[in-house]
Amino acid sequence: MPSYDQNNVFAKILRGELPAHKVYEDDKAFAFLDIMPRAPGHMLVIPKAPVRTFLDIEPDDLCHLIKTTQTIARAAVRVFAADGLTIQQFNEPAGGQVVFHLHIHILPRKNGVPLKPPASIKEEPAVLSDQALRLAAALRDK
Amino acid sequence: MPSYDQNNVFAKILRGELPAHKVYEDDKAFAFLDIMPRAPGHMLVIPKAPVRTFLDIEPDDLCHLIKTTQTIARAAVRVFAADGLTIQQFNEPAGGQVVFHLHIHILPRKNGVPLKPPASIKEEPAVLSDQALRLAAALRDK
Repeated sequence: MPSYDQNNVFAKILRGELPAHKVYEDDKAFAFLDIMPRAPGHMLVIPKAPVRTFLDIEPDDLCHLIKTTQTIARAAVRVFAADGLTIQQFNEPAGGQVVFHLHIHILPRKNGVPLKPPASIKEEPAVLSDQALRLAAALRDK
Repeated sequence: MPSYDQNNVFAKILRGELPAHKVYEDDKAFAFLDIMPRAPGHMLVIPKAPVRTFLDIEPDDLCHLIKTTQTIARAAVRVFAADGLTIQQFNEPAGGQVVFHLHIHILPRKNGVPLKPPASIKEEPAVLSDQALRLAAALRDK
């Protein structure tokens, strides 16, 4: 499979060249809201290491990424009063990947509410800013 | 969210009360083929601990589960000559969960081939047996 492209959108977010509605950051992981959420609170958790897919990441970094995902998912369930949670992770175009930096989708779910189609409707920046603040606060209070 | 139901189908598989097309097993994790695959090689990786959702599992067990998932996913890509990989994990009915023991779906993907609908078509047991043997062999040879 192809190598890592340093100019993918998430690499630019990690370098601070593009903005993001940040929810969490540590030395190895970064989480932010999807600007075209399939459900309110749709987030992406990414490693800081330059890895393209789930198959490429070092096992220790993968551990940290999934523990971080769990912590953030718990906060998301509280903040969005979610009834459930869908986690998705896509690799290569055949697997549904669009941005070629490994990312895990966290989707808080409500009973009876289907997911919106992928990348269909851009959320208002003010809504995302407010959600990011509430999620970051919930993570601090955990 | 509700507590763990000891009589869910995957608990019965772990206790040996129901058969499964096993691909991998260690002291903490178990992997087997989905009997209604959404793509050839559709597998489920589960912890042996009795946990209902992604939110419930102990962080160390979660680490082991995701590392095991990565190892099995690499084998699946080789065995099925996959162009990509989709990973899904559903929690609670609102999140798409049907069997209430935590499980991670590994779906090998081919370019241009959409996933079949969930739980739509039962695969022939002989096909699943052959795939399980090939996957288990690939995991031994890794």
